[in-house]
Amino acid sequence: MNFLEKRILADGIVKPGNVLKVDSFLNHQMDIALIEEIAREFRRRFSEKPINKILTIEASGIGIASLVAREFGVPMVFAKKSKSINIDGEFYVAEVESFTHKTINRVIVSKKFLSADDRILIIDDFLANGCALQGLISIVEEAGATVEGIGIVIEKGFQEGGKVIREKGYPLESLAIVESMDAEKGAICFRQQQNMK
Amino acid sequence: MNFLEKRILADGIVKPGNVLKVDSFLNHQMDIALIEEIAREFRRRFSEKPINKILTIEASGIGIASLVAREFGVPMVFAKKSKSINIDGEFYVAEVESFTHKTINRVIVSKKFLSADDRILIIDDFLANGCALQGLISIVEEAGATVEGIGIVIEKGFQEGGKVIREKGYPLESLAIVESMDAEKGAICFRQQQNMK
Repeated sequence: MNFLEKRILADGIVKPGNVLKVDSFLNHQMDIALIEEIAREFRRRFSEKPINKILTIEASGIGIASLVAREFGVPMVFAKKSKSINIDGEFYVAEVESFTHKTINRVIVSKKFLSADDRILIIDDFLANGCALQGLISIVEEAGATVEGIGIVIEKGFQEGGKVIREKGYPLESLAIVESMDAEKGAICFRQQQNMK
Repeated sequence: MNFLEKRILADGIVKPGNVLKVDSFLNHQMDIALIEEIAREFRRRFSEKPINKILTIEASGIGIASLVAREFGVPMVFAKKSKSINIDGEFYVAEVESFTHKTINRVIVSKKFLSADDRILIIDDFLANGCALQGLISIVEEAGATVEGIGIVIEKGFQEGGKVIREKGYPLESLAIVESMDAEKGAICFRQQQNMK
């Protein structure tokens, strides 16, 4: 079990409906020492890649992506959720369905900050059905830039997102993959991974 | 002129209606080396204070607050914007008016992550009319915690927020205070400050 799986087992809270609450250390209160360890681990896993920019999506990806960007010594861009109907030609746009809120968000990145030369590492806190991630990938590719890697903190392995994205050939690394959860017993099963420290 | 004022003058874009766009380095694309310098400067200014937690508000405060928290070696909490009408007793809540979007947001922090022992440094990217900041202050005080300091990256000195908060006695440090802007000439005037490096 790696440092993150240990922490999820210690402080994550399993709720009915396959909800995993990690708000005490990851996405409401943030344990910055843990996030630094996560950032170093992403650096290790993508050390061969010529990454020149980190891309994430607001809000909870931003804190993690900031520390990953610091580790790589590159800038970070966060995609914004936009309610505006009138988006002029200045933005790359993707439609993203929110599983939690049952709404469709428009996600935008200014064209000024993504170009064909960019070699992108996409970072996010969670991967479940993969809608947000697919939106970010489509924005990178619309810009003609390259997805060099995708780093996810927690993947819900019992949902489709990870499988679909791996099958398309993207280099996806999830630091913890939850295979199943049991709210009644408070049990969390992780998928075994080779690339573990 | 300090490092941040120089950068604003070089890369900030003044738009009509007293809008200052800093999305190339602060709140869409983030120059992480600059944010680290900002974080170190906040550490210097609040070095005497017994700060044990950083508080900010999503989304654009999160990246800055993460690096400030790293500098202080403490956890960070970000207040969330909530659309839910049914907030149970688990959250501290403040109503915050958005100047940009002309809407009222409900801002929430879980009661688990703020307690009477906490000595808080509030961090945000912009201070204009001060509504978001007043909301964060009211949440800290509802928890019985102490506002040890407030660190703002860019204050619009021609709006009321900073004045009101200083008059209430809060230790507010803004790294750059814009006194006036002229979109036609592309001019930005900064307020002189003593506490400059």
